[in-house]
Amino acid sequence: MTQVPLPAGFRAAGISAGIKASGDPDLALVLLDVPGRAAALYTRNELVGAHVTLCREHLAATGGRARALLVNSGNANCATGQAGLDDARALADAVASRVGCKAEQVLVMSTGVIGARLPLERMLAALPELHDAVSVDGTENFARAIMTTDTHAKHCSRELGKARLVGVAKGSGMIHPDMATMLAYLFTDASLGEDPHAQLRETNRTSFQRLSVDGDTSPNDTLLLWSSERAGLTGRLDDALASVGSELARAIAADGEGATRLITIRVSGAPDEDAAAHVGRVIATSPLVKTAVAGRDPNWGRILSAAGRAGVTFPADRALVRIGNSTVYSDGKPHPANEAAAADHLANEREVMLAIDLAAGSARADVWTCDLTADYVAINADYRT
Amino acid sequence: MTQVPLPAGFRAAGISAGIKASGDPDLALVLLDVPGRAAALYTRNELVGAHVTLCREHLAATGGRARALLVNSGNANCATGQAGLDDARALADAVASRVGCKAEQVLVMSTGVIGARLPLERMLAALPELHDAVSVDGTENFARAIMTTDTHAKHCSRELGKARLVGVAKGSGMIHPDMATMLAYLFTDASLGEDPHAQLRETNRTSFQRLSVDGDTSPNDTLLLWSSERAGLTGRLDDALASVGSELARAIAADGEGATRLITIRVSGAPDEDAAAHVGRVIATSPLVKTAVAGRDPNWGRILSAAGRAGVTFPADRALVRIGNSTVYSDGKPHPANEAAAADHLANEREVMLAIDLAAGSARADVWTCDLTADYVAINADYRT
Repeated sequence: MTQVPLPAGFRAAGISAGIKASGDPDLALVLLDVPGRAAALYTRNELVGAHVTLCREHLAATGGRARALLVNSGNANCATGQAGLDDARALADAVASRVGCKAEQVLVMSTGVIGARLPLERMLAALPELHDAVSVDGTENFARAIMTTDTHAKHCSRELGKARLVGVAKGSGMIHPDMATMLAYLFTDASLGEDPHAQLRETNRTSFQRLSVDGDTSPNDTLLLWSSERAGLTGRLDDALASVGSELARAIAADGEGATRLITIRVSGAPDEDAAAHVGRVIATSPLVKTAVAGRDPNWGRILSAAGRAGVTFPADRALVRIGNSTVYSDGKPHPANEAAAADHLANEREVMLAIDLAAGSARADVWTCDLTADYVAINADYRT
Repeated sequence: MTQVPLPAGFRAAGISAGIKASGDPDLALVLLDVPGRAAALYTRNELVGAHVTLCREHLAATGGRARALLVNSGNANCATGQAGLDDARALADAVASRVGCKAEQVLVMSTGVIGARLPLERMLAALPELHDAVSVDGTENFARAIMTTDTHAKHCSRELGKARLVGVAKGSGMIHPDMATMLAYLFTDASLGEDPHAQLRETNRTSFQRLSVDGDTSPNDTLLLWSSERAGLTGRLDDALASVGSELARAIAADGEGATRLITIRVSGAPDEDAAAHVGRVIATSPLVKTAVAGRDPNWGRILSAAGRAGVTFPADRALVRIGNSTVYSDGKPHPANEAAAADHLANEREVMLAIDLAAGSARADVWTCDLTADYVAINADYRT
């Protein structure tokens, strides 16, 4: 197991607290010794998990500063009413008194099944062991403890001179960014800009907002940027945020439930970048496109047809569709001779490219998704049983 | 095989012309002895099949009158450029000279694989046999010849005093009405109103627009209302149109690719009917809701969460979710004791009900879809192979 050191000032741990029946790790803690600046983006779902309410309150009360973050997997603490919010507050209180800070300096987040109460007693009982386990090498243990249907932990890092940026995310199903998606964390010791929310929104715009596994947006989606600012200013933070965000988004798409292919939808020739990203998202959520990739079928007609229903006007007879490096449709007609090479690309590459040029401008965007397999259905038909 | 007589003045037939490799029926003809009034709605996809262009031109040229309708399955004649449009025109010309009318009085429609040229010679060669076969009892043969992945023919009829209304539809995948969807026909001998387009739009609004199998809109979607007007005026035509439209839409959902359950999404307590239908469509396109039904899992959290991302504001803590007759969520909390009955409903009924009250008004709408099974993936991964 590779140990990825956290940025200066951060310590983390993840343990099994008995929330998951499997006994897998399910409770994680991240600490700073002094409060660090933090900004968060949340789901736009009308239904929100208790933690969204609590984190909004706490970050507002502190003016965007946090000492501790507690995350559990296996239970989303969502649609649990006032009792669920009380549970989240009890966890924040317990972490605060253990760490020695105010409750409002503690963030609590949950991911997992909707509609069940947290096993509060078990979680409170596990806090001492969890607290004792925090270390600067805790990235992997943190990343593992926040997993639900993920098949592996997802994290990456960038060096920024003296500073570091470490990104961690979980997510595999119910993935379709309406703003932020799933749980994702950007920890750094680089100083944030004047408006960390704006930095985070820009990071999100070209990373998690370009990702879809199944078109469903989780009520607990949260993206957190958090800095100790120990390493001071660095000019390259925004680039590193964009790069880490994209890498995590791609990792989530590649680990989509039941997925065998990471699909990059590359839309070019769009009137503007928003239109390009929108067309990309419509293609990325088409079950017909995603099942065709699962079947290794270079079915460009489904790509063109999905683009055609996105609400962006373009001349279908001048559009161009490429699969890998093979042009399979252009000038209003198919190129059957190129389909064998396109099928080879789908059959042999783990990361595949579906590209469409709309011939309606010069803007472009990449969107990431995965293929739709019978395993996705099996995973989600049996999720609670 | 039940023979459903066509309305007065109509004759129809369907035969095998060798378009489908399977040898199943794939070419159909409907005739009137004199031109009858017709109105059509088409896909809003930017990509349109050749027949959409041709039918628009012909109905505009005749002021909304038609003598003949030729439909083929097995090939959509879509994304085939000018050559595909020329093929459609050649078919219309051939039908016109055989029937003895103007080419612009002939409608031609196609459904099936996108991007392949029609086997024009085989189709032209089959016209005499097809023409000789037309009869007033041709509804079933017509309905069978327009099927693609449908597992059975879909038609129904209503008596309106002296008049009749016969509806026929095909569709099983790539079903998500952005306006009209799939191919659907409403044949009658009742007189149409002053504005048959308005009648058809209203029929469509509460039937095919309330239907989704997989969220993908076909570039060939067409809904046709066509009357011989032999039986004169009847006051109940609009009700019959709505009733036949809904029955066909439900039949398509029930025969969705790989489906084992017809799902009615019943949204109530919405601010207006459009909002209710929109929330219903978002729930109906959620893979997580549809896989849960496939797994017979009364996973109300996914229903509530899908409603929450529809963009319609409602108080999630006052919403109510019912599965069958069992309330599984209300007052901001789950009712686990009712989940066993809800699971029984999903396990034992072929037609299941997922209902949500948004507590945000008094408008309501039903939307129809089906469960998402591994068979849907298998059908669409292997469609062209």
